[in-house]
Amino acid sequence: MSDQTLSPAATHPGRDAGDNRSFIDDFVELSAFGATPAGGVERQAATAEDGEMRSWLAAWLDRNGFTVEFDRVGNMFGLREFAPGAPWLLAGSHLDSQPRGGKYDGAYGVLAAAHALHRVVRGHETAGTVPGFNFAVVNWFNEEGSRFKPSMMGSGVFTGKIPLEKALTTTDVTGVSVGEALGAIGSLGAGDAFGDGTGRQVGAYAEIHIEQGRELDKSGIVLGLVDSTWGANKYEIAVTGAQSHTGATAIADRQDALYGAALVVVALRELADRFGEDLHTSCGQLTVYPNSPVVVAREVYLHLDLRSPSDDLLDEADALLRRRFAEIEVQADVQIERRFAHTWKGQQYQSEGVDLAAQVVTDLGVSSMKVQTRAGHDSTNMKDTVPTVMLFVPSVDGVSHAENEYTTDEDLCTGVDVLTEVLHRMAGGALS
Amino acid sequence: MSDQTLSPAATHPGRDAGDNRSFIDDFVELSAFGATPAGGVERQAATAEDGEMRSWLAAWLDRNGFTVEFDRVGNMFGLREFAPGAPWLLAGSHLDSQPRGGKYDGAYGVLAAAHALHRVVRGHETAGTVPGFNFAVVNWFNEEGSRFKPSMMGSGVFTGKIPLEKALTTTDVTGVSVGEALGAIGSLGAGDAFGDGTGRQVGAYAEIHIEQGRELDKSGIVLGLVDSTWGANKYEIAVTGAQSHTGATAIADRQDALYGAALVVVALRELADRFGEDLHTSCGQLTVYPNSPVVVAREVYLHLDLRSPSDDLLDEADALLRRRFAEIEVQADVQIERRFAHTWKGQQYQSEGVDLAAQVVTDLGVSSMKVQTRAGHDSTNMKDTVPTVMLFVPSVDGVSHAENEYTTDEDLCTGVDVLTEVLHRMAGGALS
Repeated sequence: MSDQTLSPAATHPGRDAGDNRSFIDDFVELSAFGATPAGGVERQAATAEDGEMRSWLAAWLDRNGFTVEFDRVGNMFGLREFAPGAPWLLAGSHLDSQPRGGKYDGAYGVLAAAHALHRVVRGHETAGTVPGFNFAVVNWFNEEGSRFKPSMMGSGVFTGKIPLEKALTTTDVTGVSVGEALGAIGSLGAGDAFGDGTGRQVGAYAEIHIEQGRELDKSGIVLGLVDSTWGANKYEIAVTGAQSHTGATAIADRQDALYGAALVVVALRELADRFGEDLHTSCGQLTVYPNSPVVVAREVYLHLDLRSPSDDLLDEADALLRRRFAEIEVQADVQIERRFAHTWKGQQYQSEGVDLAAQVVTDLGVSSMKVQTRAGHDSTNMKDTVPTVMLFVPSVDGVSHAENEYTTDEDLCTGVDVLTEVLHRMAGGALS
Repeated sequence: MSDQTLSPAATHPGRDAGDNRSFIDDFVELSAFGATPAGGVERQAATAEDGEMRSWLAAWLDRNGFTVEFDRVGNMFGLREFAPGAPWLLAGSHLDSQPRGGKYDGAYGVLAAAHALHRVVRGHETAGTVPGFNFAVVNWFNEEGSRFKPSMMGSGVFTGKIPLEKALTTTDVTGVSVGEALGAIGSLGAGDAFGDGTGRQVGAYAEIHIEQGRELDKSGIVLGLVDSTWGANKYEIAVTGAQSHTGATAIADRQDALYGAALVVVALRELADRFGEDLHTSCGQLTVYPNSPVVVAREVYLHLDLRSPSDDLLDEADALLRRRFAEIEVQADVQIERRFAHTWKGQQYQSEGVDLAAQVVTDLGVSSMKVQTRAGHDSTNMKDTVPTVMLFVPSVDGVSHAENEYTTDEDLCTGVDVLTEVLHRMAGGALS
């Protein structure tokens, strides 16, 4: 493909003829880490594959004039300081993936931020100007939350929402802690990178990500301006019954924890069907004990996920679910314990950031629409502390958390162009 | 407790004053292997705990004049030869357990057989008589089928129902094969113990087991004479959907394999409710991929279990289940593949064996009733090749495959007494 066909909108400062080719080449290299035969990637947080990818990014940052630092929860920064004491403009996303996940989710945003900030810097160097911000690329630790719960862990600690010690002592199913796993891949820093005592303050944040839904794709629109995020209730559920014989024990005597859990999973879908597209419900994780073919299960653990643009609807769904749990306890003769694992309210991104991004896409001639995000992102945390811009590019058929996730090279490159211009204007004080 | 209170029915040959005490002492020792804090045991097939228990039994057999041999699938025999060339009378059960299983299931039957045959031998030695049979205690390999499927593997190979090579190459979830696991605990013999080329032929078999149900317990009856076994259909089911995002993906776009699997589990219970006590249905094993909190599952594997005293009813249930699977495929937008993992028809134990046992309990003054077994046993395999007697003692509240499984010492000892007399009469040619 020619550079020209990739990006018709290359009017911003720092644009070079080879930028698109360079970005796509780097993205292809990056996508090799943890690559799966079906075209996806598997590099869960702080695994060897995550570590190798971090080494690749560190080499890229170093080669392009950024200094690499890790903070105490494994967030990875590429720092480019121009004006000591000036605020820092951060841009990034995450390199970790789901098991058999897609290659665009997170990784695209980190590489896009690195290329975009590199172009912004180059623009200033070419023009001989000094920006009002210092710049940092960020690769947030464990956005996915598949190996270590909860998700968005690195940005959660960074923004003070999750205590550092709690994050570091979180273990995976094999008992390995976050602290141990980060140490093993050489990603555990000795101190903070930003905030009190570091002499560095974050002034603003920007992130670009594939849309995890099909709004953009079905509308044929290239850029999504994220103006709000759905609220989410994530629950950990324990269903307790009593172990018995699958063949011999009379049905009336059974306290089948798996039957109870199955009723919970079915109830979740019935809840979604009741509220239509304003409620998403799901159970992605369900673990049975003892999980033997001829033993009625004594315990089942489930991780439930309810999301909605309406906090009221989420409260109503929660109440209905609790009532249904009480019925299931009777129906299956089991106990159900429920606790919130992670919860956030539906929230707005700052309108100034949305307006800035809207102006940029208009100026660059890129089609755009306002979109909501149903998924959480690191920007969901960052927007609560600093001015933040969140952008989406389309994902074909809305595929997400799957190996066949796909975004065209053209859309990827347009996204980098838009992010570059947004960061350029933010560095010029557009959101200050 | 006094020996007297334990067994009022001690009239058979070979009875010594200390027999009950000796049996209970040995059973307490045996129950220490793989003991769990909640009073159960965990010693799945060919684990270290199974190996330690086998060493204990080998020492017991050796001490009491039996020669220990293993066959090529890890069945363990304690041989006592009186008349070279005469047929062999086998008695036993299995020492392996379910995960967090009960201490009586199987282990009671092996120790009861060892004590009973020891008493029969002692009776002949005391009387200076020579029996028409040689004797062997047997500990069948992998009756439970929790670590390696299918269940009743050792007796299945012994009776020619499962090919040896297929059994030895069966792997557990970590990829360890039966052959490797048996080698690791020193239980893999070089040849057969019985049959062509060994010069030994099995003439008859007897087994005693706790009832895995509450018929005896609720009737207040001590001895169950097993006259038939329920048929069983065991299925392996694969539900295939497509991986996506639990929060972001529209409900209408989901192909949620776990939702499909939950509908299967619920459908199973509805099937049991429809047929009443003549059909037992269950799913004890369900495994989700990728089992991440924020990923809609792409694949779920289930192990289903249908049992009935009526083969016709089992066929009807199978047809209804297949129809329901087709509906679930549409409802959850998934594919369901189904294959039989293990299946057996409802069958009768030979009436001669039931009559013999009935005569023994009458003569000993022990209360008894005819019972069916809903669970499979090694005797289910053995009865198809030689005259077989199967006995049950009560399990309090019918508990089975659970740590709180409990049978009183008195019932245990009465069971050994009855088994001893049954074996004594079988050795005298009662079933020949």
